[in-house]
Amino acid sequence: MADAIQTGDVVLLLGPDGERHIVKATAETKRVEGLGVIRLVDLAGKPWGGTLALGPQSFRLVRPTLTDHLRLLERKAQIVLAKDASRIVLETGVHAGSRVVEAGVGSGSLTLVLAHAVAPTGRVYAYDLRPDHLDVGRRNLERADLAGVVEFAQGDVARDVRQEDVDAFVLDVPEPQAGVAAAWSALRSGGVFAAYSPIVAQVEGVVKELRARGFVDVRPLETLERGWVVHERGSRPETNMLAHTGFLTFARHP
Amino acid sequence: MADAIQTGDVVLLLGPDGERHIVKATAETKRVEGLGVIRLVDLAGKPWGGTLALGPQSFRLVRPTLTDHLRLLERKAQIVLAKDASRIVLETGVHAGSRVVEAGVGSGSLTLVLAHAVAPTGRVYAYDLRPDHLDVGRRNLERADLAGVVEFAQGDVARDVRQEDVDAFVLDVPEPQAGVAAAWSALRSGGVFAAYSPIVAQVEGVVKELRARGFVDVRPLETLERGWVVHERGSRPETNMLAHTGFLTFARHP
Amino acid sequence: MADAIQTGDVVLLLGPDGERHIVKATAETKRVEGLGVIRLVDLAGKPWGGTLALGPQSFRLVRPTLTDHLRLLERKAQIVLAKDASRIVLETGVHAGSRVVEAGVGSGSLTLVLAHAVAPTGRVYAYDLRPDHLDVGRRNLERADLAGVVEFAQGDVARDVRQEDVDAFVLDVPEPQAGVAAAWSALRSGGVFAAYSPIVAQVEGVVKELRARGFVDVRPLETLERGWVVHERGSRPETNMLAHTGFLTFARHP
Amino acid sequence: MADAIQTGDVVLLLGPDGERHIVKATAETKRVEGLGVIRLVDLAGKPWGGTLALGPQSFRLVRPTLTDHLRLLERKAQIVLAKDASRIVLETGVHAGSRVVEAGVGSGSLTLVLAHAVAPTGRVYAYDLRPDHLDVGRRNLERADLAGVVEFAQGDVARDVRQEDVDAFVLDVPEPQAGVAAAWSALRSGGVFAAYSPIVAQVEGVVKELRARGFVDVRPLETLERGWVVHERGSRPETNMLAHTGFLTFARHP
Repeated sequence: MADAIQTGDVVLLLGPDGERHIVKATAETKRVEGLGVIRLVDLAGKPWGGTLALGPQSFRLVRPTLTDHLRLLERKAQIVLAKDASRIVLETGVHAGSRVVEAGVGSGSLTLVLAHAVAPTGRVYAYDLRPDHLDVGRRNLERADLAGVVEFAQGDVARDVRQEDVDAFVLDVPEPQAGVAAAWSALRSGGVFAAYSPIVAQVEGVVKELRARGFVDVRPLETLERGWVVHERGSRPETNMLAHTGFLTFARHP
Repeated sequence: MADAIQTGDVVLLLGPDGERHIVKATAETKRVEGLGVIRLVDLAGKPWGGTLALGPQSFRLVRPTLTDHLRLLERKAQIVLAKDASRIVLETGVHAGSRVVEAGVGSGSLTLVLAHAVAPTGRVYAYDLRPDHLDVGRRNLERADLAGVVEFAQGDVARDVRQEDVDAFVLDVPEPQAGVAAAWSALRSGGVFAAYSPIVAQVEGVVKELRARGFVDVRPLETLERGWVVHERGSRPETNMLAHTGFLTFARHP
Repeated sequence: MADAIQTGDVVLLLGPDGERHIVKATAETKRVEGLGVIRLVDLAGKPWGGTLALGPQSFRLVRPTLTDHLRLLERKAQIVLAKDASRIVLETGVHAGSRVVEAGVGSGSLTLVLAHAVAPTGRVYAYDLRPDHLDVGRRNLERADLAGVVEFAQGDVARDVRQEDVDAFVLDVPEPQAGVAAAWSALRSGGVFAAYSPIVAQVEGVVKELRARGFVDVRPLETLERGWVVHERGSRPETNMLAHTGFLTFARHP
Repeated sequence: MADAIQTGDVVLLLGPDGERHIVKATAETKRVEGLGVIRLVDLAGKPWGGTLALGPQSFRLVRPTLTDHLRLLERKAQIVLAKDASRIVLETGVHAGSRVVEAGVGSGSLTLVLAHAVAPTGRVYAYDLRPDHLDVGRRNLERADLAGVVEFAQGDVARDVRQEDVDAFVLDVPEPQAGVAAAWSALRSGGVFAAYSPIVAQVEGVVKELRARGFVDVRPLETLERGWVVHERGSRPETNMLAHTGFLTFARHP
């Protein structure tokens, strides 16, 4: 509580109605979409949990968490959602210090979740064929102050991965089976492979290749999430839900 | 690969058929259930990824990951499963350095996942009313070499929590609404509340109390997981699945 | 195939793109929304499966099935969908000749499905408090040529049901527990009770009342449906689905 | 209520604990598994809803419904469950008087549901390659007093179906695509095709063939069912559920 915001800190402005913006405490004055002009220099020195008046509204100054960064992500491609990203983190077991190869950056949502898990001492090696995806991913990681643990590289997962002895190897690419040989070479003994794939044929392709290569504990699954509504007059599930995002396939390097 | 196992390291013995045992590289000779007598002193000095012959079987020596520890957990009470524990970690945003209060240790499965996420610099403050649950939880955390980041305490979440300014507050207790006031006092601004509750009435109780107290982003949900089978002749979902574990309720301290 | 459409028959006009309209072969000329003016007298005498040209389009003349009637229902209130209506028909076991009490007509979607199942020799006794719901229900049943097996009545299920020895008793009302006593009186031995209720508290209320009253096989459940997409490049579930409509509670009069 | 059981009627003996047996009121004395010897001649003349004492237990004499017959089915092959059979009946729109081809009788569970829907004036033409499946199916239909509306025939759906102008064509066979041409020939205009298939590749095969052949409204889906538990201390979904039975594919003959 006593802590004060420092220059360079990333700050979440949390409105009373749940409105939220992420800014960096710098020496600048900046136009923030939906907020107008804000003197970022005013942030430094204010206490965490304090407030900032902007026009008629008062915003609380809060340390952003992972879900704030995910919610405010700049989107280029379809993102990997919380229900799947969270499971990938748990099954791969990545945490502070882990080294992970990721191929298929997209908008960087999964890169962000992995970077958050391995920071500050780990490393995410993030590959994508498309420079525009790498640019969006890099910007999203910078806004979350996590770019320092990620090495972005333009490249094809089947040919260009140079890392060895990594703890996890995560694929979100159209042909995940093409990355299995690279995963076999890059993973340490006991390391975990994960693929995110929307189509059943992709699951079939990657499962067959994983088994052929010698991976163990090959396990495809899908995750579902259903929101609930709690009213005065009672509770019920929400009316709509996502029926499908991607299947997850996990495997273990023996 | 070049790394060698050190005395004190926790080692996973991974059999060719997926059989697995977790042991500690000590100076002792020990009887391991299902393995017979093993000279743990033989482990130190062997390379990670190397093998150890035990009777007719050869085991690979692997650094255990989070899921190994979860699978080999000593169980006293119903455990929180991967589908739910993973989501709690993502939504609370806990990572290296985070400080978390957890009430309702049970067998320590969620304690283990939280400790793994916040290690080595964070802290889990784990409360339970029952000494036997605390004992099982402590043993499980010690086996995973994560007891150092957990402070176990016998106590009632409604009265005994002393921490302030924590990043997350996680409840798996029969009356989660009784812990909401304590969560309000303990959480930092922007910190996240999470409750795991099997019964709809628990969800209703905690949601109402969270709203009354001033929490924002109050959001109950449930997660589901469905395994898939990939055969030569085609793919299909597995025949059986868990229909229910617990509902998850998340909220944010403003 | 040799059969010809008779005056008075209900005909589905099925367009090449799946467009569909239901009309009655009468002596009139009529404006049909989306089709323009159509001389219905032209339909009689044409063979079932033949075509009718309307402007630039050619429509096939087809005997409508239950799902055509459901799709083209005039809607006033929320309708009971195929996934739930179908299950109610199976669990109640209603078929040709069965006698059913239904309370809570709404738009008549469930009335239509029940009437279709019990026709031509059975009977649906359909109660609703609101005359406007009864009017919509009656119109929908007339369009499907099934009004002859339904007796609509304005009334309160708790007080106004006079039938005895019925095979099934189906409730879609805000307080299903209030109808349980009436169901007990109306059902034959071995007859089936069914309630459709969106809220968990409604399920709890009706289950408790059913047990107190002496019903057996009391069984609440929910049904889910997920569509699939089959493309050239592979298959996957559809992106969105309904997460919830209503819970179904079945019970048996001993 | 006043009705009495006649010789030849099928009677459900419903025990106080939900125990149930189906017998036929004949002149015989018969050994019923789990009940001992019962003089069936005693049933005729007793009122429906009356009781019969058998040893220490008293059984209520009840007209069986469809679900009783399904529950007491003699099983040879995997049966089609209520969640799927009910949907097939609704989507095909079969009811009294409908004519249906079914291929893949198995234990006759779906045959029974279809026969129940089309009785007394309709017809189910039930094909299977295996005589033993046809025998089990026939016995199950006889026990339900519905054998009169079913014509069983040993044969291959791709070659042996002779019916024309049928309202529905239902497949539960290993290669459903092989039956699509036969369905095209047999169905009336506006008639409905349905396939039940456990494997995704079967769905892909049948969908492609249906589209190639000219069927419209081709629609694959899966149904799920989750039971609920209502206790004094609250409600929750049951712990386990079926994750998968078969995918359903529906299509319409234009």
